Amino acid sequence: MELSKIKNPKFLKTLSIAELNALCSDIRQCIITTVSQKGGHLSSNLGVVELTVAIHRVFDAPNDKIIFDVGHQSYTHKILTGRYQEFVDTLRDLGGLSGYQKLDESKYDPYEAGHSSTSISAICGFLKAQEINGKTGEIIGIIGDSSLASGLALEGLNNLANMPGKAIIIFNDNNMAISKPVGGLAKGFARIRNTVIYTSTKSRFKTALSKNKFGRFFYRIFKSIKNFIKRLFLDSNIFENVGLDYMGPIDGHNMKKLIKALEIAKKNPKTIVVHVVTTKGKGYQPAENDLVGKWHGVGEFDVVTGAFKSDKSVANITWSQGISAIVHSFMENDKKIVAITPAMIEGSKMQQIFSDFPNRSIDVGIAEEHAFTMAGAMSLGGAKPYICIYSTFLQRSYDEIVHDVARMNIPLVVGVDRAGIVGKDGSTHQGIFDVGMLRTIPNVVISMPKDINDARLLFKRAFEYDKLFFIRYPRESTPLLPVNAENQSLEIGQWDFYKAKKATLTLIVTGPNFNKVKEYVDSKNLPYNLVFARFYQPLDEKVLQAIIQEKRPLVIYDIYATKEGLFDAISEYLVLHNVDLAVKDYSLPTKFIKHGSINNVLDHLGLNLECVFKDMESKE
Amino acid sequence: MELSKIKNPKFLKTLSIAELNALCSDIRQCIITTVSQKGGHLSSNLGVVELTVAIHRVFDAPNDKIIFDVGHQSYTHKILTGRYQEFVDTLRDLGGLSGYQKLDESKYDPYEAGHSSTSISAICGFLKAQEINGKTGEIIGIIGDSSLASGLALEGLNNLANMPGKAIIIFNDNNMAISKPVGGLAKGFARIRNTVIYTSTKSRFKTALSKNKFGRFFYRIFKSIKNFIKRLFLDSNIFENVGLDYMGPIDGHNMKKLIKALEIAKKNPKTIVVHVVTTKGKGYQPAENDLVGKWHGVGEFDVVTGAFKSDKSVANITWSQGISAIVHSFMENDKKIVAITPAMIEGSKMQQIFSDFPNRSIDVGIAEEHAFTMAGAMSLGGAKPYICIYSTFLQRSYDEIVHDVARMNIPLVVGVDRAGIVGKDGSTHQGIFDVGMLRTIPNVVISMPKDINDARLLFKRAFEYDKLFFIRYPRESTPLLPVNAENQSLEIGQWDFYKAKKATLTLIVTGPNFNKVKEYVDSKNLPYNLVFARFYQPLDEKVLQAIIQEKRPLVIYDIYATKEGLFDAISEYLVLHNVDLAVKDYSLPTKFIKHGSINNVLDHLGLNLECVFKDMESKE
Repeated sequence: MELSKIKNPKFLKTLSIAELNALCSDIRQCIITTVSQKGGHLSSNLGVVELTVAIHRVFDAPNDKIIFDVGHQSYTHKILTGRYQEFVDTLRDLGGLSGYQKLDESKYDPYEAGHSSTSISAICGFLKAQEINGKTGEIIGIIGDSSLASGLALEGLNNLANMPGKAIIIFNDNNMAISKPVGGLAKGFARIRNTVIYTSTKSRFKTALSKNKFGRFFYRIFKSIKNFIKRLFLDSNIFENVGLDYMGPIDGHNMKKLIKALEIAKKNPKTIVVHVVTTKGKGYQPAENDLVGKWHGVGEFDVVTGAFKSDKSVANITWSQGISAIVHSFMENDKKIVAITPAMIEGSKMQQIFSDFPNRSIDVGIAEEHAFTMAGAMSLGGAKPYICIYSTFLQRSYDEIVHDVARMNIPLVVGVDRAGIVGKDGSTHQGIFDVGMLRTIPNVVISMPKDINDARLLFKRAFEYDKLFFIRYPRESTPLLPVNAENQSLEIGQWDFYKAKKATLTLIVTGPNFNKVKEYVDSKNLPYNLVFARFYQPLDEKVLQAIIQEKRPLVIYDIYATKEGLFDAISEYLVLHNVDLAVKDYSLPTKFIKHGSINNVLDHLGLNLECVFKDMESKE
Repeated sequence: MELSKIKNPKFLKTLSIAELNALCSDIRQCIITTVSQKGGHLSSNLGVVELTVAIHRVFDAPNDKIIFDVGHQSYTHKILTGRYQEFVDTLRDLGGLSGYQKLDESKYDPYEAGHSSTSISAICGFLKAQEINGKTGEIIGIIGDSSLASGLALEGLNNLANMPGKAIIIFNDNNMAISKPVGGLAKGFARIRNTVIYTSTKSRFKTALSKNKFGRFFYRIFKSIKNFIKRLFLDSNIFENVGLDYMGPIDGHNMKKLIKALEIAKKNPKTIVVHVVTTKGKGYQPAENDLVGKWHGVGEFDVVTGAFKSDKSVANITWSQGISAIVHSFMENDKKIVAITPAMIEGSKMQQIFSDFPNRSIDVGIAEEHAFTMAGAMSLGGAKPYICIYSTFLQRSYDEIVHDVARMNIPLVVGVDRAGIVGKDGSTHQGIFDVGMLRTIPNVVISMPKDINDARLLFKRAFEYDKLFFIRYPRESTPLLPVNAENQSLEIGQWDFYKAKKATLTLIVTGPNFNKVKEYVDSKNLPYNLVFARFYQPLDEKVLQAIIQEKRPLVIYDIYATKEGLFDAISEYLVLHNVDLAVKDYSLPTKFIKHGSINNVLDHLGLNLECVFKDMESKE
């Protein structure tokens, strides 16, 4: 079967098991080759090839809705629904195919996500809408074990049994997710996984038992000793605790068993959980052997050797590496610091921290809310928690930051990873809203360094541990500078002001982009005052007053946050102080920004250095 | 025992069971009397009198930390820790005793909350801090059944077994919470509640069994048939699913049994859940008989008759009543509308909606995240969900609004109840941050009506169902105006501009406060242009341009949101349009604002009408 000829998944209905397995093999090769060239999510997609083929064999999309939780495991689904060519040619490129399910990409994508654990709540919504509209069609969700242990998914699960109609929740149990799964539920899942397979569901069990006289008799006994037998067979896992039918575990790479299980689920009248055990990275040895999530989301790599291609020069490191190294050095000297991550040990490059300080590092799983509430109390108790979290996932913690940390004025240090445009993951992952969001909260310090040495100074100040202190940093790489900051220090709110002779305007720049701008301005000898706005909050009023004295037009250039961040803060200041200055804003627009390489996206937005200077010069 | 003489809870150690019960009776009377005069949380406090006394009898606060989830059931705790006089004299008054636990109120309050479901995460944090600091002391959390079914609490529970040290979680199972508990977990709890009491915990069971030869033999058999027996006795509920010891259920009004259970829990080496069954409102018949939560949070009432005192004139209704009546009328005519509340049927006055449209109303429990993700998909599926949610609880849904609704540009109507100062509940409940928070999100409409007729027009526009449309309204009451809006309509963003002759300034006002301001200005014949800013977003650019043409100083007066709302939006507009106007801001400050009556709090902030006009006049 040539993958390029697939228009829709109907052809699957007539294939033999052997043919389906051969197809899986082709799809697997296509995914490995494409991801090796384009980057993307590898392990999660290789784990669900058979499962996805089996789902499309048994169900009838798009009338039956197939919802992948997170959506980063939908590559096989994309290939089976006529998107092969776009997949191999344009995956995650600007204007190309998204790495997630997307409503505007295909009628086979009934929902979209990027953050985890939304699928069960979404299914509740679709079920109610079906009832309201009198529509039918199966609704199938595929959710992994780590996603399921998140608060949102558990809320959804708790509500699912009350919804009308019927859904099929495929619990994709790979015992890994992004990092190693954590918490009591993970242990519970492992217990279920290791027990004998039993495919009877509660209601089917009842039906079978009541079919004949003996069955009915047994069912009466069963009822009377329900506290005995019922718990024994039927109340042994979380799904049944919340009143759902359950079937499994099923070998997620055995096509015949998968199809049989899904057919049973299709016939089941009630919402049912189908527990499928899969191997992440299945079929690609380096990914199968991966225990830490190295092969979860990857850049380009060599298929044969499994070596990652890197365009980073030796002198560069990623910001995640740099920040984790800084935190590591503080943890060596201060035994009260406890590092916390929500399932991103690998993503935020915290392996060394976790390996060197096992008692002072906590992976809470996909539990961003819990991370902040726990950290607040830990700080109150006298420890010094440090949370490292992606900007986009910080959104999950808004109320916990407000209610459980800032409101009690509790000190806490937070590293905000992936701030700004994140590139190929696209609209679900852009780290652009956090400054606007955090600015609305009292007692909050928000900062972003220009380079690794500046970051060292910020962490030095933050670990004095008297403030709720956010330090943002972007996804890109940065020069690995030698430490020269030992004897320096920073005040909270401190900006840097570089005054030009006969300046025609004042340019305020944030983050690592500042060094690029300064280099450009210096090299061209442009008559611009330059300000490095190290803090989004509080503002440096001394520098602002100096800027106001200059009476030059003001340009704000922030490629790491929307205008509700620095631009609004400065506007507020100017209006409250009754200052009349011409101001031009080059912040990120308050929009959802699509995928593509960081450079391509900034070009597209007209916010790359060249675009901005051209635009500025045209207006001077 | 005179309650006024209690300095600390040490005296409890020497009392007999009969004396403890007599004390409970006194405390119960004190709570009923005080709440009848001051308002406050009645049912939840009456339910835990014996439990709180038993806890203070068995444990040694403040070295042992006692954490009440939400904190609205801590009245007995306050009385037992030397706060009797403040309790009866100043409960919930400005400058008086808070209705919740407060760090700055007593060393016996080790933590504080107001939003539910934070206690388990907080306990995780305190446990880690104890390990880091080498400190000891028991940590006891008391959490209700509805709070436990919230995502944050479930995340905490899932992480609790991994934490060092040991805590005691008292699961206060009253089968009611604010509204009726919902979801699969509630059914699971009911099942446990109705089974035989078994006080053996898993580890204690093991210990007992292995004490003698027979025990050890039995334990080996037990191990070998663990898939049989273990599930039968020990894996039957959610607590054990996440790896915690469990004991219960215990009668929460039986002092002797409570003390015994807590003593066992104190000796247990591992973290243990003690399941206590209590009756909300215990000892006050009207509250005991309450099935819907009418006696959860109350105003003043007559103790003998159980009648609520009300200073509302007959012509007034609460905003919650008014808005729910409007939504009810839309639901009568549009069968696609589905009303959703997170556990606030009573608080948001949605009883009639739930009773008349049982198939089109959903109480998701304390699951604000789930509410939005579900509603987004429901809207995508063609229904018309309406979420009614308190402003302060909307904070829990920030990421779900961004990622699961706004990002896909999904239409949704949201009623934001309790917007602005909420009064006596204080800093945890103020509805003042939502506008700043929502303004950072693309595709969002934010509005607030001036009266019930204006609200009708806003809902009429919102239920055209083409936008993510937030309609805020305050806690106070409002005149019940006759419907006169049938043939009128509003455009999105539409403000009202009342131009004065020879105006000296332009005053922009939000919400129901506008009508008060207009009445005042009209009565005094003040030369002010008046603008009713019905929308926080988008702004009415036509009106803004007209204001700018006037070239008069601008005053922004918003008592319902912080300055990151309307003031920042207007500042941004003025700066981007290079307009030089003098602007004075009377928005709420970006601070956590304490409890007290709404009027007292606004006076204290200098934001009552009289204060603002006096201040304005002094500056003219």
